[in-house]
Amino acid sequence: MRGTRKALPLPRRAAAELVGTGALVAVIVGSGIQATGLSQDVGVRLLANSLASAIGLGLLIALFAPVSGAHLNPVVTLSAWWTGRRTPGALNGREVSLYIGAQLAGAVAGALLAEAMYGRAPGGWSTLTRSGGHLLLGETVATAGLVLLVQGLDRIGRARLAPLAVAAYIAAAIWFTSSGSFANPAATVGRSLTDSFTGIAPASLPGFIAAQFLGGLLGAGLAALLYGGRPPAGSHVPQ
Amino acid sequence: MRGTRKALPLPRRAAAELVGTGALVAVIVGSGIQATGLSQDVGVRLLANSLASAIGLGLLIALFAPVSGAHLNPVVTLSAWWTGRRTPGALNGREVSLYIGAQLAGAVAGALLAEAMYGRAPGGWSTLTRSGGHLLLGETVATAGLVLLVQGLDRIGRARLAPLAVAAYIAAAIWFTSSGSFANPAATVGRSLTDSFTGIAPASLPGFIAAQFLGGLLGAGLAALLYGGRPPAGSHVPQ
Amino acid sequence: MRGTRKALPLPRRAAAELVGTGALVAVIVGSGIQATGLSQDVGVRLLANSLASAIGLGLLIALFAPVSGAHLNPVVTLSAWWTGRRTPGALNGREVSLYIGAQLAGAVAGALLAEAMYGRAPGGWSTLTRSGGHLLLGETVATAGLVLLVQGLDRIGRARLAPLAVAAYIAAAIWFTSSGSFANPAATVGRSLTDSFTGIAPASLPGFIAAQFLGGLLGAGLAALLYGGRPPAGSHVPQ
Amino acid sequence: MRGTRKALPLPRRAAAELVGTGALVAVIVGSGIQATGLSQDVGVRLLANSLASAIGLGLLIALFAPVSGAHLNPVVTLSAWWTGRRTPGALNGREVSLYIGAQLAGAVAGALLAEAMYGRAPGGWSTLTRSGGHLLLGETVATAGLVLLVQGLDRIGRARLAPLAVAAYIAAAIWFTSSGSFANPAATVGRSLTDSFTGIAPASLPGFIAAQFLGGLLGAGLAALLYGGRPPAGSHVPQ
Repeated sequence: MRGTRKALPLPRRAAAELVGTGALVAVIVGSGIQATGLSQDVGVRLLANSLASAIGLGLLIALFAPVSGAHLNPVVTLSAWWTGRRTPGALNGREVSLYIGAQLAGAVAGALLAEAMYGRAPGGWSTLTRSGGHLLLGETVATAGLVLLVQGLDRIGRARLAPLAVAAYIAAAIWFTSSGSFANPAATVGRSLTDSFTGIAPASLPGFIAAQFLGGLLGAGLAALLYGGRPPAGSHVPQ
Repeated sequence: MRGTRKALPLPRRAAAELVGTGALVAVIVGSGIQATGLSQDVGVRLLANSLASAIGLGLLIALFAPVSGAHLNPVVTLSAWWTGRRTPGALNGREVSLYIGAQLAGAVAGALLAEAMYGRAPGGWSTLTRSGGHLLLGETVATAGLVLLVQGLDRIGRARLAPLAVAAYIAAAIWFTSSGSFANPAATVGRSLTDSFTGIAPASLPGFIAAQFLGGLLGAGLAALLYGGRPPAGSHVPQ
Repeated sequence: MRGTRKALPLPRRAAAELVGTGALVAVIVGSGIQATGLSQDVGVRLLANSLASAIGLGLLIALFAPVSGAHLNPVVTLSAWWTGRRTPGALNGREVSLYIGAQLAGAVAGALLAEAMYGRAPGGWSTLTRSGGHLLLGETVATAGLVLLVQGLDRIGRARLAPLAVAAYIAAAIWFTSSGSFANPAATVGRSLTDSFTGIAPASLPGFIAAQFLGGLLGAGLAALLYGGRPPAGSHVPQ
Repeated sequence: MRGTRKALPLPRRAAAELVGTGALVAVIVGSGIQATGLSQDVGVRLLANSLASAIGLGLLIALFAPVSGAHLNPVVTLSAWWTGRRTPGALNGREVSLYIGAQLAGAVAGALLAEAMYGRAPGGWSTLTRSGGHLLLGETVATAGLVLLVQGLDRIGRARLAPLAVAAYIAAAIWFTSSGSFANPAATVGRSLTDSFTGIAPASLPGFIAAQFLGGLLGAGLAALLYGGRPPAGSHVPQ
């Protein structure tokens, strides 16, 4: 797929990252607002929110992987850049910056779109504090698992399963980690702009984002330990 | 698949659109009535209704795509007609009319069948008003996403995933959009004939249907922006 | 697969039908008892029961199709016999009798096993009356849809999708039909032997079973209408 | 896949069994704690817990099958050893011991990690007694079904479906068996170390583990009865 990916102009790839991350955040935030309005049981709310979020992520990866690689997540972009940094034709620093910028812009736009769809005044901050060491441990575990999964599928030659596998992973991780498994710095920033079920107060951003990068490193380390050596050249883009 | 599709006589294709759209509306309306009778929690009701509706849609697309293309939706029929209008052998105006007529007739029959299965007197109108700009925004987003998905899968050569992908999309869109993601003018008309969980008052039809067509245009525009140019000839039928 | 199927001795095929139908009924009845004990909300009970039942059916079809065809249902056995009655090597009358006998014996054993697993005294009758014309209409629709699905997948050359598609269908049909979608005379008989969530009073058996056979005929008729002519020889066994 | 598996050094395979079993128990225990905190309805709790556990198991089998075979369960390891004991290159006694040791160590670590993620003091015993003949019957049925499924997929040449099929099986078995379908002696030991929704009191361990080994024997017997003879050499590792 690198051939395909490199053949596409950078602006279109950045547009895919922007639209994709925006759609992802709109799905997460929108389904959280809907679920809160409909159910009295927080477990039912999270069931609906986790299933919708997982499906949205899986479909977006399937649709946009051939365009931009469908990173939709700065941790994935940085991981792809690091893994491929000595491979000709891999992401360079300028592309990494543009991808991450597009992801952040998309995440903010997605949160505002979700607010507008529910007739809420967009632009307020979340008041939902998420702090405490055990939540940061949960977020580290969530992101480590995500990176281990993406890199593991790549190492065993099953990267084409990524849409299904990553979607399923997120659905489970939202339940088994204590943090709700944000596992995505761009989406985390976007979610600070909604005062609803899936929001996160701005003061909690630094801890969560740091935990996500730490988890990404741990996941990459685990992948190296279990699968050995470097991944096969040219196959680091989840598709 | 065009060869297969064109080889079939038009009446049989129209019958597939009628039976398919009827079954789809019967599944949506029937599962909504069942869920309302069983659960006290509206979130649980929508979980059951969204899962049943998504499964029904996916199976119907799989079963009827080789017969009629399994549009089951005027927006999809018009989108297929517009995309293929300069391609020999694509849908012509008469076929479009017959498809849409069959979809509308099927949708009405499906709603009446669902009412009869639950021992309710068929033929009443829904009293469930669905209005407000934010709902129309939700419905526009829902339909834009559907068309982007269908056209996107086609552009990347994965149209065979449509049954699974469209089903999954609808399950998520019912949750993340504020409108309940009707995303189908024929089904919307059919759902005006049931005064139950999934109904829509006749007065709300014009707004919803306008939003659906607007969303269809936006989705096609997004697909052109992200995938570029026109789709490959001969591949516009979801299969 | 016919080659494979005919190569196996009849007793082993009958054993597969017995074990398979028994496991299916144990899954249906057992998950219904569990769900009733755990949840106060009948909608949640049916969500769990429908998902477990669908998964069980799909896995059993996948596992036993290469052995016996995995009919697990007299309607499917009779439909396969009728469809293939002029095809050399298809099921003959004696095999049909043995299959149906094994399915009935398995269904009874499965219900008793489920009762025993929950520490209930096996052998009582269900007291859950399921009657009324609208329920019989629901049961007819449920079985018609099942037969249309099985035969349709066969006609379009996708019979290998049967485990997934039939499982998904049952999960949806339990919700959209008013009758709970028994759609299987053997399982219906077995379920008369449990006085629990998924039971059916013996007095309601004749109506349900008649509706199932009527639905089977309607489904076969719809398949002939939509797909035309007879199915391809040698492909009538869902696999 | 044997080629692949045997090519890998034993320590790395043991690491995969340890990490995999640890992650599995962390998913089971963590999602149980989360669900208990969020929902008032025990049915909703088990829905979330069963779906998360099933997804976790499926992804771990997919990721680690090429490394270690992804047994993650002493019953599966012993079954693979017994089935392949006369096949050159199959697991030997030392490997069996190391696998089971790694599984036990991983299971304990996974339970402690889950407790830590939720800010609970790790290291206490479960107080949840699970006893009674009907529960042991349930656990026997659960493990028999698991082994029949794994061996059956192998006999019919569909072992590559194991990640999806085993995950789906566990989701259903948690609901249809009375015991909660532990079906894994290592995970059972790990779950004695959490006083939460998915725990099991140490006093209940012997009964459950005995039932699991009995179920494993029954499942292997059923597979031999239904599929006949011995499985094809070289294909006993689920992948």
